[in-house]
Amino acid sequence: MNPVDIIIKKRDGHELTPQELHYFVDGIVSGHIPDYQAAAWAMAVYFRGMTEAETTAMTIAMAESGEQLDLHDSVPPGAVIVDKHSSGGVGDKTTLVVGPVAAACGLPVGKMSGRGLSFTGGTIDKLESFTGWTAELDEERFRRQLQKAGLVVAAQTANLAPADKILYALRDVTGTVPSLPLIAASIMSKKLAAGADAIVLDVKCGAGAFMRTLDEARALARLMVAIGERAGRRMTALITQMEQPLGRAVGHALEVREAIETLRGDGPEDFRLLSEAVASEMVLLGGGNLSREEAAEKVRKAVASGAAFEKFRAFVAEQGGDVRQVDDPGLLPAAPVRLEAVSEQAGYVQAIDSRAVGLAVVDLGGGRRKKGDAIDLRVGAVLHAKTGDQVTHGMSLCTVYAANEEAGRSAAARIRDAFTLADEPVAPLPVVYERITADERTEE
Amino acid sequence: MNPVDIIIKKRDGHELTPQELHYFVDGIVSGHIPDYQAAAWAMAVYFRGMTEAETTAMTIAMAESGEQLDLHDSVPPGAVIVDKHSSGGVGDKTTLVVGPVAAACGLPVGKMSGRGLSFTGGTIDKLESFTGWTAELDEERFRRQLQKAGLVVAAQTANLAPADKILYALRDVTGTVPSLPLIAASIMSKKLAAGADAIVLDVKCGAGAFMRTLDEARALARLMVAIGERAGRRMTALITQMEQPLGRAVGHALEVREAIETLRGDGPEDFRLLSEAVASEMVLLGGGNLSREEAAEKVRKAVASGAAFEKFRAFVAEQGGDVRQVDDPGLLPAAPVRLEAVSEQAGYVQAIDSRAVGLAVVDLGGGRRKKGDAIDLRVGAVLHAKTGDQVTHGMSLCTVYAANEEAGRSAAARIRDAFTLADEPVAPLPVVYERITADERTEE
Repeated sequence: MNPVDIIIKKRDGHELTPQELHYFVDGIVSGHIPDYQAAAWAMAVYFRGMTEAETTAMTIAMAESGEQLDLHDSVPPGAVIVDKHSSGGVGDKTTLVVGPVAAACGLPVGKMSGRGLSFTGGTIDKLESFTGWTAELDEERFRRQLQKAGLVVAAQTANLAPADKILYALRDVTGTVPSLPLIAASIMSKKLAAGADAIVLDVKCGAGAFMRTLDEARALARLMVAIGERAGRRMTALITQMEQPLGRAVGHALEVREAIETLRGDGPEDFRLLSEAVASEMVLLGGGNLSREEAAEKVRKAVASGAAFEKFRAFVAEQGGDVRQVDDPGLLPAAPVRLEAVSEQAGYVQAIDSRAVGLAVVDLGGGRRKKGDAIDLRVGAVLHAKTGDQVTHGMSLCTVYAANEEAGRSAAARIRDAFTLADEPVAPLPVVYERITADERTEE
Repeated sequence: MNPVDIIIKKRDGHELTPQELHYFVDGIVSGHIPDYQAAAWAMAVYFRGMTEAETTAMTIAMAESGEQLDLHDSVPPGAVIVDKHSSGGVGDKTTLVVGPVAAACGLPVGKMSGRGLSFTGGTIDKLESFTGWTAELDEERFRRQLQKAGLVVAAQTANLAPADKILYALRDVTGTVPSLPLIAASIMSKKLAAGADAIVLDVKCGAGAFMRTLDEARALARLMVAIGERAGRRMTALITQMEQPLGRAVGHALEVREAIETLRGDGPEDFRLLSEAVASEMVLLGGGNLSREEAAEKVRKAVASGAAFEKFRAFVAEQGGDVRQVDDPGLLPAAPVRLEAVSEQAGYVQAIDSRAVGLAVVDLGGGRRKKGDAIDLRVGAVLHAKTGDQVTHGMSLCTVYAANEEAGRSAAARIRDAFTLADEPVAPLPVVYERITADERTEE
């Protein structure tokens, strides 16, 4: 096989064989295929696309390019290992709730998670709001905690899908990021390598997400479900709304507080509903032949009984965190300055630009402009109105939590400008648009 | 400016500005833009193309990436410096004839030329058939000879269009060679940097050429003429036939012998006509307000009077070659083995696969498989029948000149197979299909 021939075959619109894709992916990792050939190939894929079979072969080759976890000996015999993935958005703290809920429902949850970049936060960064909490577990400790507590969230230690790391870094600087098969292969290769038997995908859709339209989100969701099924995993995808920030809190410690409230049965309605939906899908895939209603009931009970909260508390303690902060979120890191973003008119909230809110929080210090930047866990914003809500002149749209007055005032002005008000009543936004499963039926 | 933004702009089908193209080309040469970004950009150009204005800006940026020759102080005051370029083919020894003819017509000809690769030979390699002849002239000697003899052919010493070298090497390994704007920019950047005031392009068309169809050849010719005119040069392109080898001789010393015969007013008709056509266009561009018929007459006279032959003889001597071999081509290097490729049937020659003939000569040792390979100047083939000719059973289609019997027999069989015979008479092929000038009129 010859890399140029493979590039030309794709350039001319032909389907690559699994052997060719394996050869190409292995060559990228070994360095046998230089980055300029990978770049030309990625641009050819951008223009020509890949079939479902091709994308699956590519994803499997990427998953097999490094270590592949098998956690079955760290969970009860016969247990189904269920993972979830969110395509990311502003205020997305879902893992903090869904992990403990699923664990409380008896599903072992062992998650490798990442840090945040730009206006989307990372689960691990958020959890570091707890004094002493650490994500740096070696594989041995990861397995021990999964066995003992049934819930663990750690930084990625294993060398999972190194082909993805190389290819993603290359796509980022060669204008080949927005290619559906390459996006799907990137996400799914890491999930396959992490060893889950079943995966629930939360594909965000809307102005604040990578997928702007329902068509785009549906195409990505369907492709990822197909890849997972072809690779022998059980799959469900939810297409969920990201037209406005999720919940009310944006910012690390503020989001942790909101997650704790939600685990206590409280919390903003949209976030609560989304967490229940995702957790229910995990429970459904986890086995037991439940109906969707039974799974939802099981999830609600796990919260109402306090079991999910207890799981979270034990999990924080296991990884060295201060549980007093779980019991009393007032002890979490708090910003010295609080300011209100006051509405200068009356009306109904028509839209909240998530990206603008996210970037305002980055400018408060609550996000990374580039990898490795320090972040201020205390800062952020809590929204007091969401799309569809009626607001009056002089009412606070949002409380800003800042390190100093100046930064706070600037963020408050930007977040106020992120609100669009209408004179007429506006319908609230749905939480979940669609549910996509392997048999291609789209429900809801 | 940012390389990724430029890649994305091209990827999305927009026109790049001259500033952006200059920045990109300069970045490629300085190494500031890494090869993976250049590769992704080239693939985007493959899919999206470039406008005439873009291609011209790109070509000028490439021409300006290194040294730019100005030979005006080495030629008579007011003289127009005319260059010619052939897109290459099997048996293409045109420069050997056209150079002396143009010089005999009073045009200063100072050519930088290359060596051959694969089945197309290089002018310099051919001239090395003369014992002692050297292409390695420094710029000082190049200028002196141009001034004194009016004709010089040398290996490229100046660092002309280094951007082209880098980009071509990259395109070769990234599947981005067959892109019309990139092909045109590659050829024209070197011609612009070499400093000609006027350029005659011989764009080969047919089964033995890079451009297979008249449409492709016309598009390339028009684009290069437009680039040259926009860059302030006088341009003419001829689209010429390369369905079969040019002339009868293929192989270095054999082609030199055929060129000498042609300079003496003899030689195969198609090669003689093509040389006259190209030389006439050079004379027309060289000034003097001649009609096309007057230019052709001047060219024919330069041959008939022996002036062109004398120019060639003086030129070979100037560069150290043994002129006895010019006077008696029998003294040129000769292969020890001669074999006939005998026709096994009777009929009319319908086609001769130039590529097959060229590759058979490569296998005889008369061509390079890769850069730097040694070549056997003695070997090759002389065809005795061309398209349209009637052949009888047992007649020799071709004499093969080989280093040994085995290689000769193999080549003879391959060249015989390169002939397609028909039962019915076949029309001979035209030599020149079309003439393209800047005002976009296509004649002939």
